[in-house]
Amino acid sequence: MTRSHDSDLHADPTTAGAVRRPVERWRDGAVRQIDDHVAEEVPVAFVYNDVPFAVMMATPADLEDFARGFAISEGIVDAPGDVAIEGVEHFIEGIEIRLRIPEARADALALRRRSMSGRSGCGVCGSELLEAALRYPAPVTTDVRVSPESLSLALRALRDAQSIAALTGATHAAGWASLDGTLQLAREDVGRHNALDKLIGALHATDFDPATGFLVVTSRASYEMAMKAASVGIALMAAISAPTALAISLAERAHLTLIGFARDDGHAVYTHAQRLLPPSATSPAAARPGRNSAP
Amino acid sequence: MTRSHDSDLHADPTTAGAVRRPVERWRDGAVRQIDDHVAEEVPVAFVYNDVPFAVMMATPADLEDFARGFAISEGIVDAPGDVAIEGVEHFIEGIEIRLRIPEARADALALRRRSMSGRSGCGVCGSELLEAALRYPAPVTTDVRVSPESLSLALRALRDAQSIAALTGATHAAGWASLDGTLQLAREDVGRHNALDKLIGALHATDFDPATGFLVVTSRASYEMAMKAASVGIALMAAISAPTALAISLAERAHLTLIGFARDDGHAVYTHAQRLLPPSATSPAAARPGRNSAP
Repeated sequence: MTRSHDSDLHADPTTAGAVRRPVERWRDGAVRQIDDHVAEEVPVAFVYNDVPFAVMMATPADLEDFARGFAISEGIVDAPGDVAIEGVEHFIEGIEIRLRIPEARADALALRRRSMSGRSGCGVCGSELLEAALRYPAPVTTDVRVSPESLSLALRALRDAQSIAALTGATHAAGWASLDGTLQLAREDVGRHNALDKLIGALHATDFDPATGFLVVTSRASYEMAMKAASVGIALMAAISAPTALAISLAERAHLTLIGFARDDGHAVYTHAQRLLPPSATSPAAARPGRNSAP
Repeated sequence: MTRSHDSDLHADPTTAGAVRRPVERWRDGAVRQIDDHVAEEVPVAFVYNDVPFAVMMATPADLEDFARGFAISEGIVDAPGDVAIEGVEHFIEGIEIRLRIPEARADALALRRRSMSGRSGCGVCGSELLEAALRYPAPVTTDVRVSPESLSLALRALRDAQSIAALTGATHAAGWASLDGTLQLAREDVGRHNALDKLIGALHATDFDPATGFLVVTSRASYEMAMKAASVGIALMAAISAPTALAISLAERAHLTLIGFARDDGHAVYTHAQRLLPPSATSPAAARPGRNSAP
């Protein structure tokens, strides 16, 4: 591969995640030529112990968080301390992240390569594919109690924290809020799974205690989002948009509280509702969860 | 695997794509227990010539269109007539679709398995991963001219055609409109790539002439959406939400007209704007393309 110094894939390294592109804006019957920000989408390869494992289309920001989070949420390592990032290298074709994991995990990975499944847009070789497609993490034992007011606070804060989305309108975000609704951390990506992996990686850069808060995401709640959340012991995930039936099934089994259509003024609880506190008497919250077209 | 008669994965075969699930709706300070529709998301395995190739998380509706479209848009076959669907079987673990392709293509597939890339949420084994991650289809030679009025008409019609999204709020849609803006066909899925593959498969069930219309999608325009559209000769793709920088690069190279933020009252043209007709004097169209959080 060719090392890149000035490729189209990451033309402006000073604004990670967004680049400027010319666009014709049609407005008020007139057409104007301007430059506008668009989100970057770049192939990112994960290489474990010198063996390539996966390429993801991702936004090239917070890449070390992404690599760490993917290794943790996909069960490639058992403990966050078992993954070390050895290097991030930019090529014309994309970005390569080299990671070091224990040899026993690398061996397990070699077996898993033969049966991994593709999700929402890709395919993978292997035998007995359907059997290997779904993972059901162990039930979450974390317990938290969250009030509707905390949920609303966290949702508003996540919206304000979406700096790439504010420029480009193209990225999803995942955020971690403490139980009082204060947003502690947020990450963005063109892919909703990647945004969550980046958040999980950032949370595990230091000691992470899932009993200290809850997860808010700007996307729908698919199977994979619920699976990643439960796999790291998160007890409550609130998604701005709709859940899928399979995400509900997984959340039910994994003891994950799954909230959909989470808006400032209401939400819908699909599983393990005991973790939601009743609205306080003074709260204006808990209006009707809306119906939107798919975000 | 176990054949399924009444599994959680497809509990109600009469409403393909949506099932009912209990939900706690928080509204006006009160909590109500109701049943509501949620979108189905099921592992779907493609098996070519008895060899498993890929598992996708998809909405179990229009599965034969999905299988045919994936084979065409991913270049698994050269010609739409080269893929035959031999069977669709439901298991507890998901759905298996068996397809027959020419032996030469199956041999090519065996090679490709070793270098396929994962996208937005999965990983695949192989060597030289980054080099294999991106495909750039041959430049589109189709020529069309589309007016802003036709674009608006098609967008409105696509919104009305989203029957699963109307029930669940969780699915994307892809539609094919004739040059006057009349919607000819639409398909839905929890995955935007899958919705487009279903549409491509349905279009290729009979003779498809890409010069007869244009593509409208309810999602963002990622690299993969642009790649699939260009690979079947589509000349213009209008997405309701934002494009990525890589989708713009691909569209530029592939001679695909890429429109983003396509709304009733305006849009933004990123590449090959010559295919957009100027707004007619009587048109109220062409207002400012909006900025939204990621849909």
